[in-house]
Amino acid sequence: MIPDRAARLLSGSNIAHFATVMGDGSPQVTPVWTGVEDGLVSINTAEGRIKHRNLLRDPRVAVSVASPSDPLDAAAVRGRVERIVPDPEYRHADALSRQYTGLDYQYRRAGERRVAVYVRPERVFVMDA
Amino acid sequence: MIPDRAARLLSGSNIAHFATVMGDGSPQVTPVWTGVEDGLVSINTAEGRIKHRNLLRDPRVAVSVASPSDPLDAAAVRGRVERIVPDPEYRHADALSRQYTGLDYQYRRAGERRVAVYVRPERVFVMDA
Repeated sequence: MIPDRAARLLSGSNIAHFATVMGDGSPQVTPVWTGVEDGLVSINTAEGRIKHRNLLRDPRVAVSVASPSDPLDAAAVRGRVERIVPDPEYRHADALSRQYTGLDYQYRRAGERRVAVYVRPERVFVMDA
Repeated sequence: MIPDRAARLLSGSNIAHFATVMGDGSPQVTPVWTGVEDGLVSINTAEGRIKHRNLLRDPRVAVSVASPSDPLDAAAVRGRVERIVPDPEYRHADALSRQYTGLDYQYRRAGERRVAVYVRPERVFVMDA
């Protein structure tokens, strides 16, 4: 369901950008790490963040990623949050962090409750080369 | 109005990601080049593109940018399209292209009508270092 080029961009070390919709219907977008598992795009965030509050209200989201070395190597996904999995042991955060940095997640904060968010792509665009 | 760190990220050669809202209220986000002029964030697109159709319908947009070499060096903007300027001579496209690549715009297509889109930031977030 995710074309190879998009999957490669979303499962490497390219910073992606994750868009949600605010309560007033306006868009919001911030940088994220992304992984790909079983045809779903995953990100990790913390409970209470703007993106988390938004996707609880409206599960429709979008993700965009481009290679910094070749901006024509880019992909965008529109889809829907299929599930949100609490990540108290930082397993998902550690896995994404290792994918991007080679190290376990370095930004633990006391009291922060991390969650893994899995997005089912509905439209995937791969940029024309 | 745009903090220095955000302005630097948005007026350099970092690929940014531009979010709009689809007619059904879901978000859409794609990579763009961005410039900063007189407190506005500018992008260049073509008439008829999804983002162009969306911002004509709803001028509320968002932009996210991160340094590929340091993802904690990142900024996000939420704002509103203030004006759309036809760019038939590719002046704005050339200026952005030179900013990013050092060359004039290389992707002219017959029949394509480029436009410069200027966004008034309403909220600017700079990531905690």
